Amino acid sequence: RVEVVSSNDFDLAAVYVSDAQYNRNIYFDTSPQAVRLYLLYNHWLSKVLLYFFILLDLSLAIFEEPAVFSLPIWATMLVELLCLLAFTIRLVHYAKVIPRDKFWKDPKNICIIVTLMLTLVDMIIYGALKATNCYGVRWSRVLRPLLLINVTEGRQLRRAFRSIRNALPQIFYVFLLFMFSVLIFSLMALKLLGKRGLKTIDGAPYFTNYLEIVFDLYVLVTTANSPDVMMPAYNASFVFAIFFIVYILINTYIFMSVFLAVVYNNYKKYLKEEVRQLVRAKRHKMARAFAVLQEQREEGGELVVTQANWNQVVRLVRPDISNAHRELLWSVSDDKNQGSIGKVAFVQLADLLNIEVITLKSRPHPLHSLCPAFYLSAPSRLLCRIVQHRAFVIVYDLIILVNAVFIGLDEENPMIANSEWVFLALYLLEILLKLYVFEPRAFFSRHSFWNWFDTIIVISALIATIVNSAMKSSGGYTSRQILDIVFILRVLRLIRVVDSIQRFRAIINTLIRIGPMILTFGQLIIVVYYVFAMLGMELFKGKVKFFEDPNDPAKAYCGNPLLKDTAFAQLNYCKNNFNNVVSSFILLLELTVVNQCSGFATVTHISARIFFVLFHILVVIVIINIFVAFVLEAFFVEYSVDKSDLQTSLERKIEELELAVEEKMEDNLVNAMETIDNDLGTGQSPTANKPSLMFKIASKRYRTVDALLQRMFEADLDPEDFAENDDQNGNFANPTFSSV
Amino acid sequence: RVEVVSSNDFDLAAVYVSDAQYNRNIYFDTSPQAVRLYLLYNHWLSKVLLYFFILLDLSLAIFEEPAVFSLPIWATMLVELLCLLAFTIRLVHYAKVIPRDKFWKDPKNICIIVTLMLTLVDMIIYGALKATNCYGVRWSRVLRPLLLINVTEGRQLRRAFRSIRNALPQIFYVFLLFMFSVLIFSLMALKLLGKRGLKTIDGAPYFTNYLEIVFDLYVLVTTANSPDVMMPAYNASFVFAIFFIVYILINTYIFMSVFLAVVYNNYKKYLKEEVRQLVRAKRHKMARAFAVLQEQREEGGELVVTQANWNQVVRLVRPDISNAHRELLWSVSDDKNQGSIGKVAFVQLADLLNIEVITLKSRPHPLHSLCPAFYLSAPSRLLCRIVQHRAFVIVYDLIILVNAVFIGLDEENPMIANSEWVFLALYLLEILLKLYVFEPRAFFSRHSFWNWFDTIIVISALIATIVNSAMKSSGGYTSRQILDIVFILRVLRLIRVVDSIQRFRAIINTLIRIGPMILTFGQLIIVVYYVFAMLGMELFKGKVKFFEDPNDPAKAYCGNPLLKDTAFAQLNYCKNNFNNVVSSFILLLELTVVNQCSGFATVTHISARIFFVLFHILVVIVIINIFVAFVLEAFFVEYSVDKSDLQTSLERKIEELELAVEEKMEDNLVNAMETIDNDLGTGQSPTANKPSLMFKIASKRYRTVDALLQRMFEADLDPEDFAENDDQNGNFANPTFSSV
Repeated sequence: RVEVVSSNDFDLAAVYVSDAQYNRNIYFDTSPQAVRLYLLYNHWLSKVLLYFFILLDLSLAIFEEPAVFSLPIWATMLVELLCLLAFTIRLVHYAKVIPRDKFWKDPKNICIIVTLMLTLVDMIIYGALKATNCYGVRWSRVLRPLLLINVTEGRQLRRAFRSIRNALPQIFYVFLLFMFSVLIFSLMALKLLGKRGLKTIDGAPYFTNYLEIVFDLYVLVTTANSPDVMMPAYNASFVFAIFFIVYILINTYIFMSVFLAVVYNNYKKYLKEEVRQLVRAKRHKMARAFAVLQEQREEGGELVVTQANWNQVVRLVRPDISNAHRELLWSVSDDKNQGSIGKVAFVQLADLLNIEVITLKSRPHPLHSLCPAFYLSAPSRLLCRIVQHRAFVIVYDLIILVNAVFIGLDEENPMIANSEWVFLALYLLEILLKLYVFEPRAFFSRHSFWNWFDTIIVISALIATIVNSAMKSSGGYTSRQILDIVFILRVLRLIRVVDSIQRFRAIINTLIRIGPMILTFGQLIIVVYYVFAMLGMELFKGKVKFFEDPNDPAKAYCGNPLLKDTAFAQLNYCKNNFNNVVSSFILLLELTVVNQCSGFATVTHISARIFFVLFHILVVIVIINIFVAFVLEAFFVEYSVDKSDLQTSLERKIEELELAVEEKMEDNLVNAMETIDNDLGTGQSPTANKPSLMFKIASKRYRTVDALLQRMFEADLDPEDFAENDDQNGNFANPTFSSV
Repeated sequence: RVEVVSSNDFDLAAVYVSDAQYNRNIYFDTSPQAVRLYLLYNHWLSKVLLYFFILLDLSLAIFEEPAVFSLPIWATMLVELLCLLAFTIRLVHYAKVIPRDKFWKDPKNICIIVTLMLTLVDMIIYGALKATNCYGVRWSRVLRPLLLINVTEGRQLRRAFRSIRNALPQIFYVFLLFMFSVLIFSLMALKLLGKRGLKTIDGAPYFTNYLEIVFDLYVLVTTANSPDVMMPAYNASFVFAIFFIVYILINTYIFMSVFLAVVYNNYKKYLKEEVRQLVRAKRHKMARAFAVLQEQREEGGELVVTQANWNQVVRLVRPDISNAHRELLWSVSDDKNQGSIGKVAFVQLADLLNIEVITLKSRPHPLHSLCPAFYLSAPSRLLCRIVQHRAFVIVYDLIILVNAVFIGLDEENPMIANSEWVFLALYLLEILLKLYVFEPRAFFSRHSFWNWFDTIIVISALIATIVNSAMKSSGGYTSRQILDIVFILRVLRLIRVVDSIQRFRAIINTLIRIGPMILTFGQLIIVVYYVFAMLGMELFKGKVKFFEDPNDPAKAYCGNPLLKDTAFAQLNYCKNNFNNVVSSFILLLELTVVNQCSGFATVTHISARIFFVLFHILVVIVIINIFVAFVLEAFFVEYSVDKSDLQTSLERKIEELELAVEEKMEDNLVNAMETIDNDLGTGQSPTANKPSLMFKIASKRYRTVDALLQRMFEADLDPEDFAENDDQNGNFANPTFSSV
């Protein structure tokens, strides 16, 4: 084996480390050319382009019939062809990167190819039908979200779908039992209430049709028709209320809790297994990288990676981190200062890179450098002390509260309207004062969320208010849009008060932390919504119409005589329709909250209810429960688990090197997004001999969703897992994936 | 120390063991007289009487103004005085049992005394006011549920309230943040939508009053007014829908999940601590019992309890268990056959007694004894084989399904009506066949839930159907009530099919197992409902009236002109009122499901909404979430934990002694309530030399709620806990509780 590591080898090792860091599981070719292609494949630009085309493809629904903004067919077709072309290029690129046999064995790729071909076929058929003026259905639109799932970057989404699929058998049995219970109760309701000649408020016979009863009782579980469905029976005798109470107790409360329990339990179980495999794959990749870089210092000695090689790889993987930060990471890995590290220490690198270390440079304030005499004068130092005092925060919290009251008051009053200028000035003053006291680059550092938030909101509000006043005073005309923006900004400003209260900040930080994962659920929901929206538009488009003109007589029955005098029309639900993709999405969201679909069964057929029940089962019983399970789990992790081992070792090192930033107000839960106002040398204590560079761990913030998941199940992961993997893969002489 | 244990000592030890078994924590005097009084205090009859009087006291609300069945004031007052007398007697009894200083230190007793005195004062004032025809309010009725909490038997309920109280601070902070979010969104809604001149469907101005908006958005979180509250804005522009979508996402989905997470986490944490203390107290009591019974066999030897003394105590504690069962327990405790056991083994007794061991006596079938020639003949044995075959169960499941279809069909059809007789005959035949095959006493053993269920339902249905036919054929008149009972029994018969499917049985058994705990939540809910019902009746009684006569003009507006043309009256909700305690309870249940209270704010004052919001916060956000948390936890335990250690040692002993019943179809989750049909020697295999007595552990069924709780947190309990307790309490020479 050659001792010198070539440039190509560095590239390869960097790719392995990067893949391990971001948990990419792609079995790429290891030839230098393929590695370069692979780097291009993973380039952020090509990913952004891919997502742009996916978004474009999905948003075509806005312009296709039934459209929000109608475009000619040839235009949408052309754009869709462009998208298909982009996906094909991406796929061909992928095929070049990985070995041929791997490519054809991967169901993701097959799925994309089939989707692309079906879409093409559908486009041709639809085009031909339209050219001959026949009726055609763009059925392949339902397939579009499949692209979002099956692109290589859709890892999180695929995992979420896999957890759902794995939980399905268990959910299915509980669902069967639940449906059995609903059916039995319906039968009882039919026998008890059907023959009593009761009427609903519409005058229709009450509980006489078995299938109607089943549907009504199913909807009762969603609480959408409570108490209406019970009132006729209750009015007849209060004894019948017992029937409904027992039903609600069993089916709404107990069964829905059981659903959550089953979903939660299965979700946790399978996710844990997936994360375990993820960690093993990560360690395996790091071992491969190690195999590329390893050197034998002395005959019979341990295989190691030298600091120089390590530096080279880390520089390639993360060109953005500073030399100091890299040295810190090295000193954590090379605990005994040997100048080289073994495999176990090297494997940690992927996790080390995922820990966000904030590098704080304690620079003097620019004013301190420019005119120290003034900046260090007694009044200036007093000002600094005032601004840094707790009372300053309290005073501004009070100002915000007063501002809230003023916003609530009528802004037509000139006194109130002018007060807005006072508040804007006060907020601006606050920012300027802080900039005077704190070093501007530290104040606007990447992790000072609330500083950025404040400044952007205040400056935007200032601009919008000035524009608004200018327009008002010049033409006397106020743009409604600008006024809306001004109002929104004013109200958003009030949120800042949350940051002052520690407990609130803790809860909000937890929420922000699980944000990326919630985005995965967002994608999941969008996939399901998109499919149901496409189906719904084909089934129900144009059945219910909304009329802008309030005097149109058709408005009273949503343009469909079948809806005359129904609750749907009376409650003015006409805009809840499937006439375009935006309405469909909003309607589906309403259905998620409360399953209210009587109108659509009226305008089409009773069997339309199947569509809505299916939607409810899939979204509310399965997906929302998984979402709740995830939030529960994430909160439990926050409440119970401390910082992970690796972070602690990094922190120990930082402390050892006396580079740690002392935190004055340690938050008991998190300090991820807190401002670092009080933590910096602000130029007023120039005698303090602090090192000019300090580190702080943004300990609980996760660079990737996988890191969060790994942390969630860390307690259950076998610490010996690496050793096993190590044995399995022998000497790592030939870093191809044939053995995997 | 005297070696001979006196009869009084046995009584004392038995009381300790019994207290440990049922986790009673009462510091009674140890004088023989006090022990006898204490035994009387714990007698089931005195407990039943106590709960009878509590129930009587609570149900007085039915007869007091506003009454369901009106009784004169003197009658209800007299009954209430009787109840108060009973409670006082019980309290005096309790005071005699425990040391004087313990009695006055216990807040429970103080609370009961204050409640009784306040009630008496209120009764006197109310009586005086009524005698002088003044208006009076029976305000002390709100205090009645306090008795349910504070009686010594209300342990579970007190524990539930304690968990809630402990979780409150955490919930409170999340709630504040949640309310902050609602307030900010309301402010934004006011600014964005208030000035646009939108109208609700009632024609009222939309979103112009800040407090109204806050209330509307709060109700939107409960999903009660979705999508109505959003429609006017959505009709104006679909951009406003975004506002509501963000609102629902944050407040309905994320915050409600966070509430569940916080409640679940706190509930679990505090309950675990309580259970830990419970277990320690139990061990402490067992150690005291040991101290009473202990003997020193040889000088300097270990202190032990002999088998004779042990037997004596167990006989006193559980006179109902058989000698064989007792011997089994002894052989588990005295593992090495030494004739005596040490403290560690003795302490286990309380847990051993809580394990339900089913004693199965394998008796020959009576027919086998009476005429063996016939019973052992070839046709008879074939019949036995057929009935025991799996196909027999399947055939009867099919019959049940056909029966379900027939029930669903119209019973006016004479063919259908007569088919009922066929089905009844088939079911009867099934029971008779099973009785022919299986030994009757085993068939109707205490744990054969489904056998009992079947037989009772079928026999009741037979009787009801015969009575119904007789009445029909004689007078041609059918009683509606009897027909209802017939229908209910027919439908209930169908539930049996669930038992045939293993997975369903597993889920149902889990539900049955957590049943006792759900009853505790039932009490909790009743306490809260009772208080709100009393308050609601004082606030809203008579404001909304229900008219039986459909032609009464006042029916259209519930007898209150303020309700004219409101949605409340139009939807015919008039019977949802606070006019008596039964209506109040049903209404509160409806409010738990969907918070629909607009009507009551209309008829009284806008501030009436506070009542409904408070109810929602307390019941839905706190109690329902704790209920869900409990169901989740119970299911996780079922899914994950295996049988506990003690049960396993008992089972090992049973197996060792070759007394175990082989189970053919082991259920993967539970076998608590399954029939034992196939497990018994049925007289057809007389050659098998099975022992005539066999044991089986009803392994996952808990005699007490505490045992279930202990099991839920068993994994987290320190096994060394006993030792610590042991050290703390020294030599146990003097079994008083002064050291605790």
